[in-house]
Amino acid sequence: MSDAIHQLVEAFRRLPGVGRKTATRYAYALLADGDDAFGALIEALTAVREQVHPCQVCHDWTDETPCAICRERSPRAVCVVEQPGDIVAIERGGGFAGQYHVLRGVLNPLQGIGVSDLTIDALVRRVQGGDVEELILALSPTREGEATCQVIARMLVDQPVRISRLAYGVPLGGQLESLDEATLSLALEHRRGYPEVR
Amino acid sequence: MSDAIHQLVEAFRRLPGVGRKTATRYAYALLADGDDAFGALIEALTAVREQVHPCQVCHDWTDETPCAICRERSPRAVCVVEQPGDIVAIERGGGFAGQYHVLRGVLNPLQGIGVSDLTIDALVRRVQGGDVEELILALSPTREGEATCQVIARMLVDQPVRISRLAYGVPLGGQLESLDEATLSLALEHRRGYPEVR
Repeated sequence: MSDAIHQLVEAFRRLPGVGRKTATRYAYALLADGDDAFGALIEALTAVREQVHPCQVCHDWTDETPCAICRERSPRAVCVVEQPGDIVAIERGGGFAGQYHVLRGVLNPLQGIGVSDLTIDALVRRVQGGDVEELILALSPTREGEATCQVIARMLVDQPVRISRLAYGVPLGGQLESLDEATLSLALEHRRGYPEVR
Repeated sequence: MSDAIHQLVEAFRRLPGVGRKTATRYAYALLADGDDAFGALIEALTAVREQVHPCQVCHDWTDETPCAICRERSPRAVCVVEQPGDIVAIERGGGFAGQYHVLRGVLNPLQGIGVSDLTIDALVRRVQGGDVEELILALSPTREGEATCQVIARMLVDQPVRISRLAYGVPLGGQLESLDEATLSLALEHRRGYPEVR
């Protein structure tokens, strides 16, 4: 394998979940596709590198200021997520019409990640602005996510904002027998009347 | 999702086996890694695009003329493969010390791929050069691969070259019950004495 191809394989291997075999397949597929395939990928990478930056309001990635969601949607409900990718997942579901706030991580004392490393202060200022009526905490159901939720709730205790959290429970399509005990216990504890009262 | 990120996701989706979710994950991982990650990938892509071309002898991708394998290894045994990626797989095994010849496909009358679309004529000239003593046909065990083997053998019938083909049989680690019937029949037909005579 030529040195240039080897370097490209190594660059692809830095993408998440890409091993040597997959990276090699990507490199050879581009070579087989020819100059246009290289051009399209290089152009797209260059555009993102030059144009995309965090939105000054919600801290999602954007090439506008502020981003389209912050410009066009009602600020009354704000969904707080860890990473920009979480917004893509929620938007795919299509059930949320409010704005977002990207924390850019969760609190993690062991890794030295404190309040000032995240966008928590910006979130508090956003709520203090007065337009936000509900904050939906959509962080990972981990110890760190839970601790981050508690810190945010504490910092906003004197603000007239309703705070909620994603429901925990059995995922659709999941099989009970392969579900972990903690989720199953939570799903039992948070059980709902059936059929639901309308 | 910003337009620039969307374009990058679409560019990643052209890689083999990459769907929307994986492409999105790649784009956000690069953004999270920052400017250096973009720089490394753009640089590697640009280098391959500008430097890599087919070796004039074996038609593998290379950034030299001829490639390192054609320069440094004995031309007595030449392994004929469909695609450059096949060389990577064989080299990984490490059991072959000869040169290669990349056909850049197999004959396929239905798709209009004939002898002149492949590097078969170049292979014949290489053998006519007189240095090649054995040709190992390592094409896919498909109808088209088989037909291509036959055409090559016919074109070299007046040349003093030994022609062989990869052994077909049960793959290591495979389970007999999940193996297709055709392979199993071939493995039976080509059975070998055991223990093998040394």
